[in-house]
Amino acid sequence: MDMPTDIQHQAMGYDRTATMFSPEGHLLQVEYAEKTVRLGSASVGMKCTNGVFILADKRVTDILVSMKSTNKTFEIDEHIVASVAGIVSDARVLIERAQVIAQQHRVTYDSPIEPESIIRDISNVKQYFSQYGGARPFGVSMMVAGLNGKKPELYVSDVTGNYLSYNANAIGEGDDKIREKLREKYKKDLTIKECVKIALKIFEELRGKDFDIDKFELAYIDKEKGKLKRAEGKEIREI
Amino acid sequence: MDMPTDIQHQAMGYDRTATMFSPEGHLLQVEYAEKTVRLGSASVGMKCTNGVFILADKRVTDILVSMKSTNKTFEIDEHIVASVAGIVSDARVLIERAQVIAQQHRVTYDSPIEPESIIRDISNVKQYFSQYGGARPFGVSMMVAGLNGKKPELYVSDVTGNYLSYNANAIGEGDDKIREKLREKYKKDLTIKECVKIALKIFEELRGKDFDIDKFELAYIDKEKGKLKRAEGKEIREI
Amino acid sequence: MDMPTDIQHQAMGYDRTATMFSPEGHLLQVEYAEKTVRLGSASVGMKCTNGVFILADKRVTDILVSMKSTNKTFEIDEHIVASVAGIVSDARVLIERAQVIAQQHRVTYDSPIEPESIIRDISNVKQYFSQYGGARPFGVSMMVAGLNGKKPELYVSDVTGNYLSYNANAIGEGDDKIREKLREKYKKDLTIKECVKIALKIFEELRGKDFDIDKFELAYIDKEKGKLKRAEGKEIREI
Amino acid sequence: MDMPTDIQHQAMGYDRTATMFSPEGHLLQVEYAEKTVRLGSASVGMKCTNGVFILADKRVTDILVSMKSTNKTFEIDEHIVASVAGIVSDARVLIERAQVIAQQHRVTYDSPIEPESIIRDISNVKQYFSQYGGARPFGVSMMVAGLNGKKPELYVSDVTGNYLSYNANAIGEGDDKIREKLREKYKKDLTIKECVKIALKIFEELRGKDFDIDKFELAYIDKEKGKLKRAEGKEIREI
Amino acid sequence: MDMPTDIQHQAMGYDRTATMFSPEGHLLQVEYAEKTVRLGSASVGMKCTNGVFILADKRVTDILVSMKSTNKTFEIDEHIVASVAGIVSDARVLIERAQVIAQQHRVTYDSPIEPESIIRDISNVKQYFSQYGGARPFGVSMMVAGLNGKKPELYVSDVTGNYLSYNANAIGEGDDKIREKLREKYKKDLTIKECVKIALKIFEELRGKDFDIDKFELAYIDKEKGKLKRAEGKEIREI
Amino acid sequence: MDMPTDIQHQAMGYDRTATMFSPEGHLLQVEYAEKTVRLGSASVGMKCTNGVFILADKRVTDILVSMKSTNKTFEIDEHIVASVAGIVSDARVLIERAQVIAQQHRVTYDSPIEPESIIRDISNVKQYFSQYGGARPFGVSMMVAGLNGKKPELYVSDVTGNYLSYNANAIGEGDDKIREKLREKYKKDLTIKECVKIALKIFEELRGKDFDIDKFELAYIDKEKGKLKRAEGKEIREI
Amino acid sequence: MDMPTDIQHQAMGYDRTATMFSPEGHLLQVEYAEKTVRLGSASVGMKCTNGVFILADKRVTDILVSMKSTNKTFEIDEHIVASVAGIVSDARVLIERAQVIAQQHRVTYDSPIEPESIIRDISNVKQYFSQYGGARPFGVSMMVAGLNGKKPELYVSDVTGNYLSYNANAIGEGDDKIREKLREKYKKDLTIKECVKIALKIFEELRGKDFDIDKFELAYIDKEKGKLKRAEGKEIREI
Repeated sequence: MDMPTDIQHQAMGYDRTATMFSPEGHLLQVEYAEKTVRLGSASVGMKCTNGVFILADKRVTDILVSMKSTNKTFEIDEHIVASVAGIVSDARVLIERAQVIAQQHRVTYDSPIEPESIIRDISNVKQYFSQYGGARPFGVSMMVAGLNGKKPELYVSDVTGNYLSYNANAIGEGDDKIREKLREKYKKDLTIKECVKIALKIFEELRGKDFDIDKFELAYIDKEKGKLKRAEGKEIREI
Repeated sequence: MDMPTDIQHQAMGYDRTATMFSPEGHLLQVEYAEKTVRLGSASVGMKCTNGVFILADKRVTDILVSMKSTNKTFEIDEHIVASVAGIVSDARVLIERAQVIAQQHRVTYDSPIEPESIIRDISNVKQYFSQYGGARPFGVSMMVAGLNGKKPELYVSDVTGNYLSYNANAIGEGDDKIREKLREKYKKDLTIKECVKIALKIFEELRGKDFDIDKFELAYIDKEKGKLKRAEGKEIREI
Repeated sequence: MDMPTDIQHQAMGYDRTATMFSPEGHLLQVEYAEKTVRLGSASVGMKCTNGVFILADKRVTDILVSMKSTNKTFEIDEHIVASVAGIVSDARVLIERAQVIAQQHRVTYDSPIEPESIIRDISNVKQYFSQYGGARPFGVSMMVAGLNGKKPELYVSDVTGNYLSYNANAIGEGDDKIREKLREKYKKDLTIKECVKIALKIFEELRGKDFDIDKFELAYIDKEKGKLKRAEGKEIREI
Repeated sequence: MDMPTDIQHQAMGYDRTATMFSPEGHLLQVEYAEKTVRLGSASVGMKCTNGVFILADKRVTDILVSMKSTNKTFEIDEHIVASVAGIVSDARVLIERAQVIAQQHRVTYDSPIEPESIIRDISNVKQYFSQYGGARPFGVSMMVAGLNGKKPELYVSDVTGNYLSYNANAIGEGDDKIREKLREKYKKDLTIKECVKIALKIFEELRGKDFDIDKFELAYIDKEKGKLKRAEGKEIREI
Repeated sequence: MDMPTDIQHQAMGYDRTATMFSPEGHLLQVEYAEKTVRLGSASVGMKCTNGVFILADKRVTDILVSMKSTNKTFEIDEHIVASVAGIVSDARVLIERAQVIAQQHRVTYDSPIEPESIIRDISNVKQYFSQYGGARPFGVSMMVAGLNGKKPELYVSDVTGNYLSYNANAIGEGDDKIREKLREKYKKDLTIKECVKIALKIFEELRGKDFDIDKFELAYIDKEKGKLKRAEGKEIREI
Repeated sequence: MDMPTDIQHQAMGYDRTATMFSPEGHLLQVEYAEKTVRLGSASVGMKCTNGVFILADKRVTDILVSMKSTNKTFEIDEHIVASVAGIVSDARVLIERAQVIAQQHRVTYDSPIEPESIIRDISNVKQYFSQYGGARPFGVSMMVAGLNGKKPELYVSDVTGNYLSYNANAIGEGDDKIREKLREKYKKDLTIKECVKIALKIFEELRGKDFDIDKFELAYIDKEKGKLKRAEGKEIREI
Repeated sequence: MDMPTDIQHQAMGYDRTATMFSPEGHLLQVEYAEKTVRLGSASVGMKCTNGVFILADKRVTDILVSMKSTNKTFEIDEHIVASVAGIVSDARVLIERAQVIAQQHRVTYDSPIEPESIIRDISNVKQYFSQYGGARPFGVSMMVAGLNGKKPELYVSDVTGNYLSYNANAIGEGDDKIREKLREKYKKDLTIKECVKIALKIFEELRGKDFDIDKFELAYIDKEKGKLKRAEGKEIREI
């Protein structure tokens, strides 16, 4: 699809609502929402032999902002963590929904929820908003890392509500380049420590001089301990 | 209908909603949705003397993606399997609906549901979304293969919700060419083994050097055993 | 109404919704839907001294399609048969509605429903969709043939929901020409056998070399036996 | 209002919905619907000393159409008859509504309904559809003739839902010219026989050589007998 | 506001719905509806020392129309009469509403309703339709004359739902000129007879040779007798 | 914001609905509604040491209009009075709402409602209509004067639903100039008599020769007596 | 994103509703609403060692306006205060909602609500209005300062419903410049007195000669006393 076709379809209004297909069969509003996601700060998730983690770029280090408030990883339950990219207020709505679902599962079945149940529910909500009129799609990609029993799992859901299970993945700014690097460096038999090193190295390579360990935040779940732990800035190196 | 008429009708907006006929009596939004389906990965289904199968092109072999997650065939019930082409998140919604309907039938009647009941329900949902306003049509073709008692059956439902029973058919990328080849090679008195060979050969002929057995996934139901079995990559050749 | 007026009215948007009259008092969306009907495969119905029948052109003889699946005549109840022309998925919705109404009548009154009750209900649904907003009109013509007690009856309902009782009529591709021929050949005192011969001859005359008895399907109800019988291809000649 | 203003208002879209006034205070969609009515076949109604009648032009004499099915006069109750002009499927919906109202009145009050109650209800429905959005106006004029006790009454309701009581009136094709002739010939002290003669003569004068008694249908209610009687073609002359 | 601004605002669509203000703060749809009212036939109402009356121009004297049916004054209750100008079917809906409200008041409180309660309810309905979307404003002005105990009262409500109490007023065709004349001739200490004379004289002056007493209809309520009386044509002179 | 920007934004449709912001962050529909308010007749309200009052310009002195009907001040409860500027029928709806709320408060709590409760409720209704679609904003400014116990209070609510408490203010035609004069002349330690003199003087200065005491209407509440009193024309001077 | 793209996207209508993404993934209506917020009067909030405060510019000092009425800080509960910038009537609706939520919490749990619960609820409401159609987004930024137990907290929520916890922040006119100065001067170990001095100095520096202490209003909560206190104009210096 060449550029002129794009502009022509914009002029003809195929991109005005999520409920309209373009003559090529595209949902342009949904594709625009994906661009919003690319504007969000990046995070990387990886499955390791002994657990799973998300390493997130907090991006902001404004003295006016409270430290805690800038967290980019969110505890869904003690065994599940999530990061998001895109419209922050949209994301909060989905994060809160995920937290409620996890709690309800604990109360109802007295057992931890599977990470896939979380990502499927969030993805179904997103699909609904990409098909029905009267509202815009959610401008949010979500990455969910957690344990299914003792099995580490990692999922990413895009703005259309499509989700897959990954060994390693990235969302937000520059996700394409990060994925390229992950394909080179990722191996299945590495520990959390080794994988975090890889992830940091990738950020270092991509950011160059702008790389600053203080802006990063790590959330990991060791499959033996089963509970979310966090580290920020220099603490990450220590682990 | 020549090209200029098409462009004229686009300019005049007949293709802005599924609830509008063009002056030729076409539903252009629905026709655009069909193009989306052509962008999906291909799958072939065939009725054989001893059962029915779907052979699907998984297309992706990204190391970052978990193997299981890329499955292109979905178990609706132990005697029914489905593949889809089109918008993946739309498809998941329909697949989950089909699974729930099959479960409800088992619970209510204590017997397996007929494959046609599944395809009819899914097709009615699609028809509804191609006639009523406030939402876009589902951008999904679905192929359903299964047993009605001991009788193998194969159905394909297009984006309008029209469905037919087939001896053999294909959906997704290049479906036209696959169907052409199927018309040449398909015979009614072949076993699953013989038919799978034909299907693989068709893919080989069409893909040429790009053909890679590792990217394929087979789901078949033997009419004696009555339960869905799967094979991937090289395992397919072994069968 | 000359051509330029047509184009002018299209440019001005009178044809964008079924809820709008053009300055000449036409419902253009409904007229466009009628064109869809002309694209459907043809069927002919006739009232005879000893019953009523529908002879339908199945059109497709694709080896990939299951024979049964291509039926163009639908049993509404054991004494009523219907054929349709237009959007196939729309048609299925109406056929299923008709079947349910016939069943409910049997259960409620313990007697067969009159064919006119069927056509009136379907026509009322169509009228509704040609007047109210939020959905498009049904792109379907329906022909209903059946017995009211021992009296053969034949009805056709167009896309607006207008219906009449006929001695003989045709819907679908080339219906105008078929009706012309029917006016020449139809007489009220002929048996089913004689009428089927006339219908086949009309198709032969119109199709010329393309005529193929194998593509035709006959559904007839003898007023003494009172039950729908079917014949396909060569079997038709035998009757 | 000169022509250019008309075209200007069309271009500016004042005629796109029944819920919009033009700058001159017109409801253009409703006026377009009135044009549809002029396309319908004509019928004439007259109050006479000994009853009331409607004489309707059936227009069609197609051998393919069942005789009964072409009736243009509809029994609302045994003492009330109606004819319509305009969109046939819209008309059927209103006729059926009138029949139900008449039945309900008999069941509830054990007495015949007054003709004005019928026309008022139908007119209120029409008014509603000319003021509210989401649907188009009914494209139907309705003439109702009947007895209020022993008093003959005749009403006509236009597409806006405006109705008046008449001594004589016409709806459908050429209604203006028929009314002109009625003003010349109608007198209040004539019997049904005399009035029917006048009505036939008017049709003869207007149609000239195209006049064909066989195409006409008469429905009359004698105030002594109080029940609807019908005559067609030559039978009309005999009365 | 000069002409070009008007046309500019029409072109820019400020006059497409009653729910939109123009840049000058006007509701153009409502102003267009007021033009419809000016097309209606005129009626004059006056408060007098011994009662109140409405004198209405029936306008039509078509032999085909039943006399009673052309009434332009409507009895709301035995002590209240109303006339309307504008869209006749809209008006009927409001008149019927007023009649029902008056009846309900009698049933609930066993006393006659005050005329102001009638006009307030009708005006509130009109205001609603000038503010909310989904329907057009009522194209009707209504004049209500009646007794509040022994006190004569006269109200006029315009299309926006604004109403005032008047000593004398006119609605419909040429209302401006009639009001001008009323300001010259009206005095508060005149009887019904004297006021009717004034009203007739005004019509005579304005119509000139076209004036025809037979086309007029008088409805008056004497404050002692308290009940609506009517007179038509020559009878008016006799009073 | 210069003129061309305004026109540009009109052309681009930012001013078509109250639910749309212009690129500068303005709600243009709401600003247009404010222009309607400036077209209404003026009224002035002032808080005084011994009470509060509203002095309103009745503007009309048409002999045809009943005196009482032209009141521009409305009793909400015996201790609260209101005046309005803008669309008269919109205003009546809000005034009636305020009266009902005051009555309900008396019935529920057996005590007079605070004036701020009245203005807050009315303002919340207005805010709602400036944010939600499907209806236009209320084109009304409202001034409420009353006693909160023995404390005089004065509030004005604009079309957006913003309200403030004032010592003195004006709404309607020329409100800017009146406010300018009020800023010069108003002092907090004046009695009702002294303040009314100031208000009349302001009107005299602004109207010049057109000033006519007969057109004015005074509604005041003395904080000792606690009940609304009224005076019109010359009576005002006497107080 | 350069200027021409902006204008192009406006011309193509991506900025007409909050439910539409622009091709760059922006929500233009929401961005316009943010401009409204910049038009509001400024307020500054700061967390201090012994409490938290908001210093607000009241801006108006009109003798006609009652002093109390111009308050720019609102008590949500005795331990929480809020300021707003943007559309005043929108803000009032949100403030009243916050007050009700705080009250309900006290009644239900017999304990003070946490400030974050307030800001989260308000932010969720705003997010909803930026995603769903049928209403415009709230044009309001809100700052909430309060105690969580003995811990001072400060939150700001923007028009999209995104909120963060801050050490110090500003909303309204010139917020960017104020934040710049805050970054220079703010330290975490200062008392309320010291912080207020800083805030006043910032306003003095930015306003220059226009700075007037009388226009400012201070609302602070000492963490020991736990209750909101206020000071205005010169009183602020005294603290």
